[in-house]
Amino acid sequence: MKRIMINELNNYINEKVQIKGWIHRIRKLKAITFIIIRDRTGLVQCVVNNKEINNVDTKLESVVEILGTVLDSKNILNSFEISVEKFSIINSSIEELPIEINKQNLEVNLDTMLNNRMLSLRHEKVNAIFKIQNIIVEGFREFLNNEDFTEISTPKLVEEGAEGGTEVFKVQYFDREAYLAQSPQFYKQMMVGAGFERVFEVGHVYRAEEHNTNRHLNEYISMDLEIGFIEDEKDIMDLEEKLIKFILKKVIAEGKSHLEILKVEVPSIKNKIPRIKFSEAIEILEKEYNKTGLEGDMDPEGEKLICKYAKEKLECEFIFLTHYPRKKRPMYTMPCGSLETHSFDLLLRGIEITTGGQRIHEHNMLIENMRYKGLNPKNYESYTSNFKYGMPPHGGLAIGLERITAKILGFENIREASLLPRDRTRLIP
Amino acid sequence: MKRIMINELNNYINEKVQIKGWIHRIRKLKAITFIIIRDRTGLVQCVVNNKEINNVDTKLESVVEILGTVLDSKNILNSFEISVEKFSIINSSIEELPIEINKQNLEVNLDTMLNNRMLSLRHEKVNAIFKIQNIIVEGFREFLNNEDFTEISTPKLVEEGAEGGTEVFKVQYFDREAYLAQSPQFYKQMMVGAGFERVFEVGHVYRAEEHNTNRHLNEYISMDLEIGFIEDEKDIMDLEEKLIKFILKKVIAEGKSHLEILKVEVPSIKNKIPRIKFSEAIEILEKEYNKTGLEGDMDPEGEKLICKYAKEKLECEFIFLTHYPRKKRPMYTMPCGSLETHSFDLLLRGIEITTGGQRIHEHNMLIENMRYKGLNPKNYESYTSNFKYGMPPHGGLAIGLERITAKILGFENIREASLLPRDRTRLIP
Repeated sequence: MKRIMINELNNYINEKVQIKGWIHRIRKLKAITFIIIRDRTGLVQCVVNNKEINNVDTKLESVVEILGTVLDSKNILNSFEISVEKFSIINSSIEELPIEINKQNLEVNLDTMLNNRMLSLRHEKVNAIFKIQNIIVEGFREFLNNEDFTEISTPKLVEEGAEGGTEVFKVQYFDREAYLAQSPQFYKQMMVGAGFERVFEVGHVYRAEEHNTNRHLNEYISMDLEIGFIEDEKDIMDLEEKLIKFILKKVIAEGKSHLEILKVEVPSIKNKIPRIKFSEAIEILEKEYNKTGLEGDMDPEGEKLICKYAKEKLECEFIFLTHYPRKKRPMYTMPCGSLETHSFDLLLRGIEITTGGQRIHEHNMLIENMRYKGLNPKNYESYTSNFKYGMPPHGGLAIGLERITAKILGFENIREASLLPRDRTRLIP
Repeated sequence: MKRIMINELNNYINEKVQIKGWIHRIRKLKAITFIIIRDRTGLVQCVVNNKEINNVDTKLESVVEILGTVLDSKNILNSFEISVEKFSIINSSIEELPIEINKQNLEVNLDTMLNNRMLSLRHEKVNAIFKIQNIIVEGFREFLNNEDFTEISTPKLVEEGAEGGTEVFKVQYFDREAYLAQSPQFYKQMMVGAGFERVFEVGHVYRAEEHNTNRHLNEYISMDLEIGFIEDEKDIMDLEEKLIKFILKKVIAEGKSHLEILKVEVPSIKNKIPRIKFSEAIEILEKEYNKTGLEGDMDPEGEKLICKYAKEKLECEFIFLTHYPRKKRPMYTMPCGSLETHSFDLLLRGIEITTGGQRIHEHNMLIENMRYKGLNPKNYESYTSNFKYGMPPHGGLAIGLERITAKILGFENIREASLLPRDRTRLIP
């Protein structure tokens, strides 16, 4: 007999069916027992005669197979239920559950939730997060495929650090050392130059951040894109604006049931995402919020305040900050005058979710800018050599998947939007 | 003026257009010069008056912008050409090209090709490989999404090795050690149990193989899937058969122009992929090819010969080998009797492209099998704990992306099907 999924049972009224799933809830009465069964598509109430299960060890979350007839019935879950004829345990739960997952809310702290990840993911409110995350990734991919991008997958084991920073993980690579890539930056630029022109990658990146914060993960998923033959960074911002609108629309359309479970309001973009210069943002923070001391960089509080300003004064929960100082941007960033750059960040609900900009495409300018940043071009020869043979003007961006998921869903801690987070202390599960 | 892509120029006959791209070839005559321009969509012949470019340094592979009129013309590339009015260098090549990329074949050895990766990828025969690879990945994803799978992305920084082997890369993770995941095995099983039931992942995996071979990479892309509520491994093989047919069909339909460039014949499956037991395969090798000494494992020559047998005697370039010996399969493999397992490999054109099978879903059987394999269950507690709370019967498989790409395209060396391969000696580019 073929297994029927719970969300298809309404097509089988008065028919005999087989279902399989987990025991979600049990309520034993004198003669009968109500057993709620859960599969990947939903919940259904099953009514079983106690005689049928008197010798069966029915534990919550055991995996079962049920043969029965679908009958019309009014209950809180559906307009039908299953009258059970045969009840079999496929694989029994063998220990007391460490967390209760059949309550409306999973009332445990984040660590407990993550320590019991398989079980916590069975809770519909936790499961829904990753269904939404999937829609975000699919939206990113679908939009870019339609725009003639090529998906790439580039090495995470690298010899050169992309950002020239110190926060890299070292790997013992046979008799020498390698690093885990902090970003696919060098490779996506290379692939633009390799003739693909427009490339994207959804992949892991690694940052050896020493400190646990609610904004950082040590391994996270970066949605990267890079595009050739642009005028300047405004082309990238225009593209991202369309991309974000496309993703939000898809999340609302395809994630409806999950959004209802999570009770969240997706941020909207009425018209355009406001764009202000970084230096203006600093002035606004000082004038409006008395926030000073932000020299060339935005701190977490500054990001929160400028988002508050965007929401209240510019009526948008997103805001582009542009023209970041040259001192604060990596060596590959196209300078704009002597102090600024053709760069931008996109902020949403208090946090940066994207960094992007135009890159330098001329070999000599790149070498010069490396020196300006105190780097030795000799250490980057396999990267810089690409610029000798016709690199088109180009730029790109990276969106942190867990960050954008967390902010769309209104979470404060990025870990809630990571299937299996890695941080300073957490390597399992 | 808006840039027009070369493959759209036939819609602009007698109109003025702007194109951008790379100088692919130059032929200077007395009064005029023929310049072939390449963008991501194709090649076009441009005719320019020598007066226009006498003072311009036209080097192969420089990035240029051209203004001109599209005119009817008979030439080897198209039924039109561009009569150039304005010719501008956007970014010049500044060094002699290390490899010639405008010839029909890229006549360099593999190392030279990889050392000059940006340039070699500009060659249409190299570029086409990764267009086909993309179609394979998209086919994998599309088929599984249609079958109600959920895409997952799991950590590559892990504390426990999945296979219990020694070929792992060590990472310095702050004050302790971590490993690079050899496979997402533990996590995909966990996600089946987490209620997703059907999951897949396209991601990097890491194998610290000491030796350079033409079959191995140290970092490669694994297309993994895992599915709950199966009867046994035959469900997985049935699914893979449909999946492979879907992918091949998509490659032929959407990759037509790339396949023509590469001049390859995609393997076909007339009806079913033959399935023979591993032990039978060993007998066949002995009887048909005098190949002996294969005790519990297939060596590369054995794989080649059994594929030869499948092609010649069973009329299929694919073959499933089933029931691998228990001693040779990892601890999570479902035993079948005392010596065999519910497992399989799929071979194509002389090499294993998939390993799969049914997994153990009962906690106690898993612990016992770990001991049988000489492993200490205490070292795997975050994995084994998942089996205490209702793990459904399940199984899955992994397809090596570079291997299946290489074999579909008829390459002997897997590196040809890797965008940026990592092997014993290669960490750049």
